[in-house]
Amino acid sequence: MRELEAHPELLSLNAATVRAQWGHAELVEGCKRHGISAIATWRDKVAETGVEKAAKLVRDAGLKVSGHCRGGMFPAADAAGRRTALEDNRRAVDEAAALGARSLILVAGGLPPGSKDLAGAQTQVEEGIAALLEYARKVRVDLAIEPLHPMYAADRACVNTLKHANDLCDRLAPGPNSGLGVALDVYHLWWDPALEAEIARAGRTAGRIMGFHVCDWLVPTNDLLLDRGMMGDGAIDIPKIRSWVEAAGYAGPIEAEIFSARNWWKRDPDEVLAVCKERFRTVC
Amino acid sequence: MRELEAHPELLSLNAATVRAQWGHAELVEGCKRHGISAIATWRDKVAETGVEKAAKLVRDAGLKVSGHCRGGMFPAADAAGRRTALEDNRRAVDEAAALGARSLILVAGGLPPGSKDLAGAQTQVEEGIAALLEYARKVRVDLAIEPLHPMYAADRACVNTLKHANDLCDRLAPGPNSGLGVALDVYHLWWDPALEAEIARAGRTAGRIMGFHVCDWLVPTNDLLLDRGMMGDGAIDIPKIRSWVEAAGYAGPIEAEIFSARNWWKRDPDEVLAVCKERFRTVC
Repeated sequence: MRELEAHPELLSLNAATVRAQWGHAELVEGCKRHGISAIATWRDKVAETGVEKAAKLVRDAGLKVSGHCRGGMFPAADAAGRRTALEDNRRAVDEAAALGARSLILVAGGLPPGSKDLAGAQTQVEEGIAALLEYARKVRVDLAIEPLHPMYAADRACVNTLKHANDLCDRLAPGPNSGLGVALDVYHLWWDPALEAEIARAGRTAGRIMGFHVCDWLVPTNDLLLDRGMMGDGAIDIPKIRSWVEAAGYAGPIEAEIFSARNWWKRDPDEVLAVCKERFRTVC
Repeated sequence: MRELEAHPELLSLNAATVRAQWGHAELVEGCKRHGISAIATWRDKVAETGVEKAAKLVRDAGLKVSGHCRGGMFPAADAAGRRTALEDNRRAVDEAAALGARSLILVAGGLPPGSKDLAGAQTQVEEGIAALLEYARKVRVDLAIEPLHPMYAADRACVNTLKHANDLCDRLAPGPNSGLGVALDVYHLWWDPALEAEIARAGRTAGRIMGFHVCDWLVPTNDLLLDRGMMGDGAIDIPKIRSWVEAAGYAGPIEAEIFSARNWWKRDPDEVLAVCKERFRTVC
């Protein structure tokens, strides 16, 4: 297991962690100021800056991009909606390429409005990823399926376990360096009794683990989306999960992604970055 | 699959559905008034009335008790805490016996305060059920493990999938009529890709499926605990899941259990019962 104290360069800051306070340019400047060497970008923030300028800022600052958030959201009520989603996903792939991102993060999408057809939505996700993968391989951008917590199954992502994401990878792109893999976020996966086994399974295919995200599960949690905790403030044994991920061969960055409308989004972003760095060293 | 229109006697009303409005006696009277022939009881409501009197009210009204809520909450910080939990669970078993309940519903319990040891809590749950089962068999009360949604893993139940509950049954009490089984609530389980297979697995052991609970998953859901929906108002395909449960051999009641501080708990309880009856016929 890696000694994080000796490897500050492994910390990546996801733009969502300070999304209420900073745009893309401020994020780049802030990370440089704090000696953070990688970021994860979000499409809306990149769009505000313009993708070319955003990419230049990243390059000039010497930052790595651990992931671009996010593609996905495949299911739609009709064929036109699915086509629109696929076109938008191709643009997201292009952005990830321009930014030099390790991968485009895919959040599956939930049920089309009014639908109760969970299996149908999951089929749409599989077909959507298959179609996008052809394009992404041409542009040489990896796609990372991020299973989301089951509480998002209806409205955000109907891929809710690492087993499901691994199954999709096995069906759509088996083998190493296939261009399709998974992003693991402790917040979404920590409760799963199959997690250790599924992380090992992901690790058996070289390169399938494309990202590792950390935050914490607060007790109580007061909002389904925007009440995530700073690492160390909740119930998740992050080092244990990290040990499984690294035993599976993952050697990439550890990305702090914290949606926190009640707390961290209200704080001075320089304080947020300082706390992230400290918690990265001490509790991850 | 059973035709519910022809079988109004299959509806059971869980006391939690009108817990803000009614005590136990009012629940019994209300169900009698509405022609609902079964209820599920809660310990606090029964305690307010006194268990003997509560049981007499049920008997005099000719009601069935589809389940008594709830035992469990096994994990504790130390041995004294675990002993206290076990003693309290034995009292819950005695209440279930007095009430003539089909089973005592077990909610596992979450992490002891401050703990991040999920596997340890799960071991405590297994040991607690094993100890309680000895007592429950003597008193001839069945124990039904109810897996709760993964969003409750930290503070309420660290058994979050039907697979986990089935595994516990296989390890602790394999075979038919073992006194240990599962209660299935669509709210907690609907998202799980393994659900159909695990329901079939539960069905292979006669009598393991001890209860079937319904409500709905609202989009959006505004509270992790108290924003559950009336059947038909959310994203869950209840008839599909019921078809799996009945194909697995379940022939018991269908229990409406709706925690809804924002909506149904604020309404006239007679309206709530009328809507439950109508939705039972039309959308379950």
